[in-house]
Amino acid sequence: MNAQNIFQHPPASLPVEVAENLVSRADFRIERIISRGHCSSPGFWYDQAENEWVIVLAGRARLRFEAAAESVALGPGDYLHIPAHVRHRVDWTDPERDTVWLAVFYR
Amino acid sequence: MNAQNIFQHPPASLPVEVAENLVSRADFRIERIISRGHCSSPGFWYDQAENEWVIVLAGRARLRFEAAAESVALGPGDYLHIPAHVRHRVDWTDPERDTVWLAVFYR
Repeated sequence: MNAQNIFQHPPASLPVEVAENLVSRADFRIERIISRGHCSSPGFWYDQAENEWVIVLAGRARLRFEAAAESVALGPGDYLHIPAHVRHRVDWTDPERDTVWLAVFYR
Repeated sequence: MNAQNIFQHPPASLPVEVAENLVSRADFRIERIISRGHCSSPGFWYDQAENEWVIVLAGRARLRFEAAAESVALGPGDYLHIPAHVRHRVDWTDPERDTVWLAVFYR
């Protein structure tokens, strides 16, 4: 049983944000997401059927909830719970380095 | 919607390893576990009904699987998947600092 490292093997180029499944089941998924200056398209909101628990493990990001006036700043170790259908978007991620997210989606 | 930080508010004293639920559902759970030199009792093996996906976010640990000759060294970012009923134990955690684990248990 060997360990893998969440910070290893980031994609060399990142034209778009990259998400990989670390665990994938019918009603449950763990994803590693890597952003490098990416953010959601103007006017786009995630509206997910699944609940999401998400933590930033490296880098910096700003997450915006439609119901909130201001975005939430996230750095290493910061986590949030996003219930299903709570509309949100990524306003900003650090363009200078990789932002590594760990996201757990569940029904 | 405010973020919390996984590294904040560690218990001041840690006579035993401390686990807290960050998310808890009937068939799904996310735990923060903090160890400070703790390890499993001699001869003890975890034999869990749930699958576990676990990552070390800070500190150092050694995890031992019953079926393996040697323990697996884990540091920040290292993760493992432990299927249900795969017997394992914590052989060692760093006595000098907190080891912060994030564990996702699911059926």
